Amino acid sequence: MNVNAILEAAAQAAPAFARTTPRERAGALVAVAEALDAARDEIIALGQEETGLTEARLRGELNRTSQQLRLFAEVVVEGVYLDARIDEADPDYVVGPRPDVRRVNVPLGPVLNFAASNFPLAFSVAGGDTAAALAAGNPVILKAHDGHPRLSELTGRIVTEALTKAGMPDGTFAVLFGREEGVEALRDPRVRAASFTGSTHVGRMLADIAASRPVPIPFYGELGSVNPVVVTPQAVAEDAAGLAQAYVASVAGSAGQLCTKPGFLFVPSAEPLREAVIAAAQDVPPHRQLTAGITAGYQERREAVLKADGVEVLVEGDVRVDDDGLGWATPTITAITLAQLEAAGESVLDEAFGPLSVIVEYGDDTAVLPEVLERLFPGNLTATIHLAADEDPQAWAALLEVLARTSGRVLFGGWPTGVSVTAAMQHGGPVPATTQDATSVGTAAIGRFLRAVAFQNAPQAALPPALRDDNPWGIPQRRSAAGLSSSWGELTGRY
Amino acid sequence: MNVNAILEAAAQAAPAFARTTPRERAGALVAVAEALDAARDEIIALGQEETGLTEARLRGELNRTSQQLRLFAEVVVEGVYLDARIDEADPDYVVGPRPDVRRVNVPLGPVLNFAASNFPLAFSVAGGDTAAALAAGNPVILKAHDGHPRLSELTGRIVTEALTKAGMPDGTFAVLFGREEGVEALRDPRVRAASFTGSTHVGRMLADIAASRPVPIPFYGELGSVNPVVVTPQAVAEDAAGLAQAYVASVAGSAGQLCTKPGFLFVPSAEPLREAVIAAAQDVPPHRQLTAGITAGYQERREAVLKADGVEVLVEGDVRVDDDGLGWATPTITAITLAQLEAAGESVLDEAFGPLSVIVEYGDDTAVLPEVLERLFPGNLTATIHLAADEDPQAWAALLEVLARTSGRVLFGGWPTGVSVTAAMQHGGPVPATTQDATSVGTAAIGRFLRAVAFQNAPQAALPPALRDDNPWGIPQRRSAAGLSSSWGELTGRY
Repeated sequence: MNVNAILEAAAQAAPAFARTTPRERAGALVAVAEALDAARDEIIALGQEETGLTEARLRGELNRTSQQLRLFAEVVVEGVYLDARIDEADPDYVVGPRPDVRRVNVPLGPVLNFAASNFPLAFSVAGGDTAAALAAGNPVILKAHDGHPRLSELTGRIVTEALTKAGMPDGTFAVLFGREEGVEALRDPRVRAASFTGSTHVGRMLADIAASRPVPIPFYGELGSVNPVVVTPQAVAEDAAGLAQAYVASVAGSAGQLCTKPGFLFVPSAEPLREAVIAAAQDVPPHRQLTAGITAGYQERREAVLKADGVEVLVEGDVRVDDDGLGWATPTITAITLAQLEAAGESVLDEAFGPLSVIVEYGDDTAVLPEVLERLFPGNLTATIHLAADEDPQAWAALLEVLARTSGRVLFGGWPTGVSVTAAMQHGGPVPATTQDATSVGTAAIGRFLRAVAFQNAPQAALPPALRDDNPWGIPQRRSAAGLSSSWGELTGRY
Repeated sequence: MNVNAILEAAAQAAPAFARTTPRERAGALVAVAEALDAARDEIIALGQEETGLTEARLRGELNRTSQQLRLFAEVVVEGVYLDARIDEADPDYVVGPRPDVRRVNVPLGPVLNFAASNFPLAFSVAGGDTAAALAAGNPVILKAHDGHPRLSELTGRIVTEALTKAGMPDGTFAVLFGREEGVEALRDPRVRAASFTGSTHVGRMLADIAASRPVPIPFYGELGSVNPVVVTPQAVAEDAAGLAQAYVASVAGSAGQLCTKPGFLFVPSAEPLREAVIAAAQDVPPHRQLTAGITAGYQERREAVLKADGVEVLVEGDVRVDDDGLGWATPTITAITLAQLEAAGESVLDEAFGPLSVIVEYGDDTAVLPEVLERLFPGNLTATIHLAADEDPQAWAALLEVLARTSGRVLFGGWPTGVSVTAAMQHGGPVPATTQDATSVGTAAIGRFLRAVAFQNAPQAALPPALRDDNPWGIPQRRSAAGLSSSWGELTGRY
């Protein structure tokens, strides 16, 4: 199908899909999950061939993909996401006589999602953005990433067939191929919102297109992140070798092609970690990179870091390009003092999408860390602090405040790679980590694809089911009763 | 103070203000409300002088202004807006072992609000955006509207003094004067979000500035709206004279300088309303317009409508400009057939900010209304339908679906002017009504000035109070317990 046909089908499907009941839509999401699970072996085999990711990684990713569809099915049936509010009419309301007003979240219409390269399942055709947008009741047009076209085609067919079998309208889901086609769709008035996972450069370009349309649309981009990790002097003293090993494992996993890879490790000095870092890195076999484009970008960034003033190489690593043009990388771990990092600027600070990380030696003066972190790392998906077991976090209050202000998720110990799909997950963060500081992982991600509408003095028969007094969907309704002095009432429904 | 000093003070205040407890912040909001109420007579007198609005209107508006500060105080203490979520660690979680993750909404930092001309209190210095942004914990920089500088100065002084007395940090609130100063502030990296109420032209220009900053920020603009009202043939037959009188009253109130003024009234034919419209309009005395700029804009739009092909004048009305350059307007009511409206295009369709409204005669063919309304009126704050008492709303389902898709509030009967400040109010709508389809009225408006942060495996002492197990603020916490098969748990706290 060409772009126009896909968009027209999505626009046609939108009203009917928006009218589906929560149970119908939840059933469709579960049907997609089951269809993906049933095609597991075919999907994994093709994914390994096209992306070079390991079987274990892809099996985990497929499990995440189908389970997150099921989680969103639960979210839909539960109905908290609708934020249904009912103000009873009240002639004695404090701000003046009040009509009956009822407000509910509704879908936006067709959503365009640009799939990621590095999660060919969980951030791609049937990934988190698709699950969230469909759960909210929006048709989805999925712009496939050109790093895994065959897998996208296969997954897209499975999703479309499952939705059709579940009775969803034709046009509820489609896969679109081609960069120009993606941009054409982004400019089209039938598209009402877009999401993207990828580089800062491309994301910002697409965000500008979305903002400069005659009718701008929300654009949720998840872009670059370098995920600083700060280790206190006491935490290094407690277990330098353990830290070093876990650090290398987090940097090297999936060849560093993760948006949460720890790009910078802040320690007083690299010396206590040196031996263990080198030993751990030597054990990491070469890992294939996802695409030739990623290899080229990584080679350029790696060379820029290696030749920057003050950069010391702990583990040189390498990138070899095979006969097919595909890169194979081993970890590169460098060190630099904080003063030299500030002098080096972007050449070292910019994200290197691959298994490279920089150990920053901050020396004795921990008092400068809050200001430095806020200035050098203004927006990240994650920020991590490692404290010693008996260390008082209040001693680091100023730094913790900066980490919370400059990132979407603050970790205490552990490593930022491995993002759990839960109710409380925030996979967002200030610019440049994302364009709108909204989460693209976890059940809160549904909020990106909704808008609110209020109905004033509507007869019951004209109200959306979520706002009716008989509450046919059994969802939570927040009711502000007449006669109270405030606008706020009590939750009714099943609480 | 110059722009830099104001912004620096706001940036300095931000962390301390964000740390205030809900009760401290609520107390400060109530203190501002009390200070405004105490200065009532001085405020009203100055407001009448500067804006030409009536005493009754300004007294009502001041009541709304102080009561909505109190409503936001309740919202803050209640804490639902924090959306606190706690995932207990769970090694057996369906998507893989889960750490302890906790997520809460936090303030953004300094918010810049551009005040409106037409609500010198409720959408100005101490208005809804200020209340929502302060409630969320953000310092506010208020760009005063040049239509009422002395009132802005007075109100600003009252707000600042009350906040200081209530113990809030210096820099929590300031008033900024001057258009260039406003744009300079919008470009400044210390400003983290902005809001605006005004014209589509200026709003879009400011939105583009916000989007093109090196670090773009959310920009919530409430722009133009023409608020179509559709009357069914049966409803006209039921009470044409009553409709006509109430319509003129809604158009003429505050000289039509309301964002929810009904700009278009759809009826089968203007004939049954003609006599009552003319009679009602004759009773409306001239009303002063807010500023010379509004008068000039209104004159231009009024002339364009009057000379458009097919426009029939029911009530000509006029605009007289007095010696001070201020305009005095009486209602202008015109009629046009649907076919002629389509032919006339923007010259008639664009908003006329003043007491002008167009009666659109749709004739016998009601089936075309959904398509026409969606195409001609793609984004409005409100859309209204008048049904006869015994009319089945299901017969109008297609039109109702369009009205809900193209507006923020759908009214059944009544008139869109007069927006209630409640939990369920939505004062938003698709572009061009607003830039982000978020509400600027009602308690849900607080959501515009928040972002979410997650904390992973944090010790209790390092968590924000809203996420601690001992829940010191007594707010609702959504807890996903370990051992459940789903990510979703039960609400704890006081429900």
